[in-house]
Amino acid sequence: MIYKKIYVLGAGAVGCFFGGMLVRAHHDVTFIARPKRAEALNDSGLEMDCKAFHEIVKVKASSDFALLGDADLVLLSVKSLDTEDTLTQIKSVLPSKAVVLSLQNGVANIEIASNIISNPVYAAVVYVAAGMVGQRTMKHHGRGELLVGSLGRTAAIDDKNLQEICKLFEEVGVQCSIAPQIKREMWLKFLVNCSFNAISGIGQISYGEIVKSSEIVKLIQEVTKEFLAIAALEDVNISMSEAFAANDSIATTMVTQVSSTAQDLAKGKLTEIDFLNGYIVQLGKRYGIPTPHNETVYALVKMMESQTIK
Amino acid sequence: MIYKKIYVLGAGAVGCFFGGMLVRAHHDVTFIARPKRAEALNDSGLEMDCKAFHEIVKVKASSDFALLGDADLVLLSVKSLDTEDTLTQIKSVLPSKAVVLSLQNGVANIEIASNIISNPVYAAVVYVAAGMVGQRTMKHHGRGELLVGSLGRTAAIDDKNLQEICKLFEEVGVQCSIAPQIKREMWLKFLVNCSFNAISGIGQISYGEIVKSSEIVKLIQEVTKEFLAIAALEDVNISMSEAFAANDSIATTMVTQVSSTAQDLAKGKLTEIDFLNGYIVQLGKRYGIPTPHNETVYALVKMMESQTIK
Repeated sequence: MIYKKIYVLGAGAVGCFFGGMLVRAHHDVTFIARPKRAEALNDSGLEMDCKAFHEIVKVKASSDFALLGDADLVLLSVKSLDTEDTLTQIKSVLPSKAVVLSLQNGVANIEIASNIISNPVYAAVVYVAAGMVGQRTMKHHGRGELLVGSLGRTAAIDDKNLQEICKLFEEVGVQCSIAPQIKREMWLKFLVNCSFNAISGIGQISYGEIVKSSEIVKLIQEVTKEFLAIAALEDVNISMSEAFAANDSIATTMVTQVSSTAQDLAKGKLTEIDFLNGYIVQLGKRYGIPTPHNETVYALVKMMESQTIK
Repeated sequence: MIYKKIYVLGAGAVGCFFGGMLVRAHHDVTFIARPKRAEALNDSGLEMDCKAFHEIVKVKASSDFALLGDADLVLLSVKSLDTEDTLTQIKSVLPSKAVVLSLQNGVANIEIASNIISNPVYAAVVYVAAGMVGQRTMKHHGRGELLVGSLGRTAAIDDKNLQEICKLFEEVGVQCSIAPQIKREMWLKFLVNCSFNAISGIGQISYGEIVKSSEIVKLIQEVTKEFLAIAALEDVNISMSEAFAANDSIATTMVTQVSSTAQDLAKGKLTEIDFLNGYIVQLGKRYGIPTPHNETVYALVKMMESQTIK
C-alpha cells in the first residue's frame, strides 16, 4: 500500500464514515478536526453507528495542521466554505508526494484546491446518507460508495493514483470505482444536491417526505430545468430524463435522510448553500440566464442561516 | 345604531380583536367559533392583551350557525379557506336585512360570498398585528385600523351602510374609513401578504428580521414584480415604488409580528396560502404569465403545511 499516512481533513459525517472504515482495517489515519471534536474522538473513540455494524473505533485526532508533513493521502472533507482557508493553512507543510482526494459537495472545490497547492487533487463523488450526532458519533443511514476521477489531468501517474485509491477503499469494504467522466458525475451529484438540499433544509424534511408534496415535485423539476441550462453552458450535457431519474433515485434510496443543509441549519451552523443553489445563481448571472427558482430557495436558506447561526 | 345584533363569524385573532372592541363598548356581539373555542370564551371570557390595555371581556360565543337568524351585521373573519363552506351553512338562516363585512385576507372572498348569499357584502382591509394564544387570549401587538368599501355596488344604500359601519367602529375606538378605491386597497394589502406571509411562515421569522437578509429583500422585490404584472391584468395599477413603499411600511410598523401563515404552520393548521401566493400562481397560469418566485414560496409552504397538519 503506497498510502501509509492518511489524513482526514474535516471530521464531519463524510470524513468520519470513510476515515472510520479505513481505521477499522488498521490503516494509519489521523483526523484533523476542531479542538472540541478532536478531543472527543481521542478521549472516547469514534462511534460508528452504521447500517451494517455498530462499533466504537479508537482513532487519532488533532487540530494541528503541521502533522500533515508526512501525509501520503489526504481525504479532504471540510465544507466547501472552508476549502480555501484550510488548504492555505496546509500549503507549506504538505509534502509533494501527498495525494489529495476531495469528498466534498459542489463542483468548485478541485479548482479552488488546485489554485493553492500543486499536489494532485482528485475528485470523489460521494453518495452516503450519514450525519453526526454529538461530537463523536457518526450515524450511517445507508449507501457509502465512491466514484473517483481526475479533472483535467490525464497522465499515467493519475491512473495509478486512482487505482491505488480504489484498491485502498475496496479492501476495507467501501465500493469505489474510477469514473471516466468524473466531471459529469460531479454535476449529477451537484444536481441532486441542488434539487434536495435547500428544500430539505428549509422544511427540515427527509427526501422521502419531500417528494410526497406534488407542489414540491414540480418545484424540483423547475430547479432542475434551470440547473441543466447552466450545466450545458459549463459543457456538461445531462438530459432532462436522466436528471429526473437521478432525482428520483435519491428520493428512493435515501428516504429517511435529511440533507447536510438541514443538518447544518438544525445545528446553527453555516451551510454550503453558496456552493449549491447559490453557485447556480452565480453562474446564471455570469451567463445571463434567469434562475428564479434556484434564487428563491437560495435566499430562503440564507435567511434561515442568518437566523440560526450561533 | 342600526346594527343591534352583531355576529363575529370566525373567532381568530382578527375576529376577537374587532369583536372584542365592540363588546367592550357594550354592543350585542356573538362569536361563532369551533366548539372548543366557544366553550373557552363562554366559560372564561375573552382575554384582550392589547397594546393599550389588558382586559378580560365577558363574551357570548356559540358554534350554532342558526343563531344568525336575527343578525344585523356579520363580521366575516373565517379563513379564506372556509368562506365557501361557512356561507353555504348560514345561507338559509341569514336574514335579508343582514349586512356582511369581510375582514379577510386575499382578494377572492367578496366574490365567493356574493355568489352564495344575496346580502350586501362589503370589504374591510385590515391592518392589525395580533395572534391567538391558547383558546381565549388575543395578543395585540399593534395597529388595528380598517378601510371599508364596496366592490362593484354603488347604490346609495351602500354608502349609508358603510357610513354606519364606520360610525360603529369609530365610536368604539377603532379607526375606520371608507376607501373610494377599495379594490386597490385590497390589492395593496394582498401585495404585502404575498410579500411577507409565506417567507415569515417558512422561516418562522418576524417582518423586522426578514428584511435584515439582503437576499430576502431581493426575493421580495421579485415576488412583488410578478405580483404587479398580475395585478395590472386584473385592472389594478400599482407602481413599483408604491409597492416597495407598502412592503417597507409593513416591515417598519410590524417589526416583531410573524405572519398568520407562520402562526398557522406553528399551530399545525391549514394556511391561507392558496389565497395568497397560490392565487397569484393561479392567475399567472390563467394569463400565461410566469410567476416562478411566487410558485417557489407557495410550494414550500404547501410542503410545510402537509408536514405539520395535526
